[in-house]
Amino acid sequence: MAKNDKMVKAITSMDEDFAKWYTDVVSKAELMDYSSVKGCMIIRPYGWAIWENIQKILDGMFKETGHENVSMPMFIPESLLQIEKDHVEGFAPEAAWITHGGNDLLEERLCVRPTSETLFCDHYKNIIHSYRDLPKLYNQWCSVVRWEKTTRPFLRSREFHWQEGHTIHATAEEAQAETVQMLNIYAKFAEEFLAIPVIKGIKTEKERFAGAVETYTIEALMHDGKALQSGTSHFFGDGFAKAFGIQYTDKENKLSTPFQTSWGVSTRLIGAIIMTHGDDNGLVLPPAVAPIQVVVVPIASHKEGVTEKATEVYEGLKKICRAKIDNSDQSPGWKFAEYEMKGVPLRIEIGPRDIENGECVVVRRDNREKVVVKLCDLETEIPKLLNAVRDGMFSKALEHRNSATYDAKTLDEMTKIAETKPGFIRAMWCGDRECEEKLKEVAGVSSRCIPFEQEAISETCVCCGKKAEKMLYWGKAY
Amino acid sequence: MAKNDKMVKAITSMDEDFAKWYTDVVSKAELMDYSSVKGCMIIRPYGWAIWENIQKILDGMFKETGHENVSMPMFIPESLLQIEKDHVEGFAPEAAWITHGGNDLLEERLCVRPTSETLFCDHYKNIIHSYRDLPKLYNQWCSVVRWEKTTRPFLRSREFHWQEGHTIHATAEEAQAETVQMLNIYAKFAEEFLAIPVIKGIKTEKERFAGAVETYTIEALMHDGKALQSGTSHFFGDGFAKAFGIQYTDKENKLSTPFQTSWGVSTRLIGAIIMTHGDDNGLVLPPAVAPIQVVVVPIASHKEGVTEKATEVYEGLKKICRAKIDNSDQSPGWKFAEYEMKGVPLRIEIGPRDIENGECVVVRRDNREKVVVKLCDLETEIPKLLNAVRDGMFSKALEHRNSATYDAKTLDEMTKIAETKPGFIRAMWCGDRECEEKLKEVAGVSSRCIPFEQEAISETCVCCGKKAEKMLYWGKAY
Repeated sequence: MAKNDKMVKAITSMDEDFAKWYTDVVSKAELMDYSSVKGCMIIRPYGWAIWENIQKILDGMFKETGHENVSMPMFIPESLLQIEKDHVEGFAPEAAWITHGGNDLLEERLCVRPTSETLFCDHYKNIIHSYRDLPKLYNQWCSVVRWEKTTRPFLRSREFHWQEGHTIHATAEEAQAETVQMLNIYAKFAEEFLAIPVIKGIKTEKERFAGAVETYTIEALMHDGKALQSGTSHFFGDGFAKAFGIQYTDKENKLSTPFQTSWGVSTRLIGAIIMTHGDDNGLVLPPAVAPIQVVVVPIASHKEGVTEKATEVYEGLKKICRAKIDNSDQSPGWKFAEYEMKGVPLRIEIGPRDIENGECVVVRRDNREKVVVKLCDLETEIPKLLNAVRDGMFSKALEHRNSATYDAKTLDEMTKIAETKPGFIRAMWCGDRECEEKLKEVAGVSSRCIPFEQEAISETCVCCGKKAEKMLYWGKAY
Repeated sequence: MAKNDKMVKAITSMDEDFAKWYTDVVSKAELMDYSSVKGCMIIRPYGWAIWENIQKILDGMFKETGHENVSMPMFIPESLLQIEKDHVEGFAPEAAWITHGGNDLLEERLCVRPTSETLFCDHYKNIIHSYRDLPKLYNQWCSVVRWEKTTRPFLRSREFHWQEGHTIHATAEEAQAETVQMLNIYAKFAEEFLAIPVIKGIKTEKERFAGAVETYTIEALMHDGKALQSGTSHFFGDGFAKAFGIQYTDKENKLSTPFQTSWGVSTRLIGAIIMTHGDDNGLVLPPAVAPIQVVVVPIASHKEGVTEKATEVYEGLKKICRAKIDNSDQSPGWKFAEYEMKGVPLRIEIGPRDIENGECVVVRRDNREKVVVKLCDLETEIPKLLNAVRDGMFSKALEHRNSATYDAKTLDEMTKIAETKPGFIRAMWCGDRECEEKLKEVAGVSSRCIPFEQEAISETCVCCGKKAEKMLYWGKAY
């Protein structure tokens, strides 16, 4: 067990230094490596496989709801970015600019897309003429670039991978319904597949996406009590369409302006998984997106028949889940630590005595619970255990969120909670931007969202004491 | 049938103007749209769905042979690109350069990756220490940028999508075997799934990838007699590893230098499909990658029971293939033309009389053959018919290639063939670069490859008349 101990000690404890723990985990679990381009990371096979699993599930959900994938150019001409006023103000300051193609100076600078609303609008203008052309429900999987000053793997990097949905509709109602539908898909995905409980709500004007009429968000609470915005869905009204001159002939043969949405989730979700579920032994991965769902570790594999039986078990499991067998010459202890670090949901230990008894030991990563399972029952028990792991992870995360959610009625209360108790703070707000800014200044918290599920905590704004009807979630955030 | 005729006439005939026919098809079949960034295109849902099908099949073939996907940054610092001398000479002249992040001038220019050898080498240097770390069999799906002067949809664009495999091995033999293995996978994919016959061979030094020791290629012949390089696989020897200082401790505890490969296919394959199989009615898609494999068109759908029966047929087919039903109010003739334009492999026509007889008419896109199929046999017959379409397309393309492949023994013969008969020219070559350049100058042809399957056409070089042992394929190329 020496190697095992060494491995465990190789990462910083969460409680000691959460930021250090995080960077230790992403490196040791081989999710990423730093590249020679500052602020851009290499996503290694184990990390990319998680993203591929996320993509596959979400892409299926998008296609089921009638969305189609497209591919836009990665560049935006400066003049195109400038068409919508709020949008350019939000994104130009952190754009990466191409000035030369080969040795030639370009006539017009191009930025690498920070987001693609302008490109989609430009395309929609070309292809939408009649009400028959509506709606268009498009999505693309790609990477985008925002020249951030400070970066952290998966949470904030200059290039990041995401999907961006861009839809266009005949009516505002239809576009609004789409915005909410996509938020609900994100919430369902986060909770059911990633085992991450989320708060669904609306952003304040201050936190709104540049150019949006309304931004919907799902907010998750990380282990250290900081919030993570985990997915957003924007209703644009007809602002972009008007700025870009997109019009269509409606059923009454009149020219009308359509309504738009956009929505996205990114590799940030991998950061959310790490910081919601991880522990001092490393990653804990939700079974739905784990690259390896079950690892088979033979015990005393030099003994006759062990490797054979373990392989037989593995071959059976391979048909029903993402399984792996580790026949390497490392010690079982080393292997236990390795697959705990990598967050593999279930570990199967199988040695000579187990084989004699026709059974094996299944160890859950989420709570280290050991279950003895008859080998003949394995293929029916493993799917149940994988579900149990997901449920266990969700309950634990929900409990943590509940225990780290506080109510504040006065500025004084809010400041004290923010100083001493990391977590969400629920408090009433009058709707004034000044109060929102003061809370940031005094208590160091930002508004996370106006949740769909409202509850009157008091009758007055936590900041100014004026009458207030909206309850908001506040917190420190990534 | 008026609309039908109009539709058919809407594209230029292939024989009249092949280039115009091509751009007509990519637009009318809604594969792409031009973007406001010169030389970059928008890939529309129907085009992107073809690429997704290509990706899915190839990705499966890569994973079956032990490859893992990763994601590298899209930027390369100028100094990193410059490390391997031949490589930088090949790619720097057409690189797109980032000079500013937001308002700040970057300390060092970054280019948008034209290909990622340098990024992979930089990463390998970090993660490879011992023979235990070898081989690494990595691949990534992404887009790359090369600032080309003249562009054409799918064939040559400033940004294009591809996969790039990058592997690193302990021995030269292993790396060479990988290079050939991947070429064989490309050839199998092109022939079996895309129904495109290809010539497998080696590039001459002149046509080699910048930095490679050997470049392997698959070459296809388009309908107009021009060649299209459709996939390449490169053996790098230890050149990149030495330039980047990648070393590992071998089993004898000595420092050794590893060997590398890279290999790629791109959205060019969509261009290959169009120009190999298309006709004056539009696209003809290979069933394996067709977004819609079977379209059901109800005839006289106002008659009782037609829509219901057609829908029943569609529901059954949906379970076994990518099926679609068109219940729109367009005329059957319009629909026939529309799905012919889109290259849908099989069309099912079903009207009142068919229903009475318990049958339907299945029309093949590749040869317009009509088959009457009993409705009860449909689900067993459709897969067979899809295979027959693939086989028919392959035979037709192979016949075309055979009939457009000529042998030349003298420069005079070669020049005449090149002038009058579009196609491949097989001719002997002494191995001198001067002869290769002269053939380009005089006959306007470039060497396509030194095929694996050799045949002695004569004993002397087609250009200089000196003794020659290598038979090459030559031709005009995209």
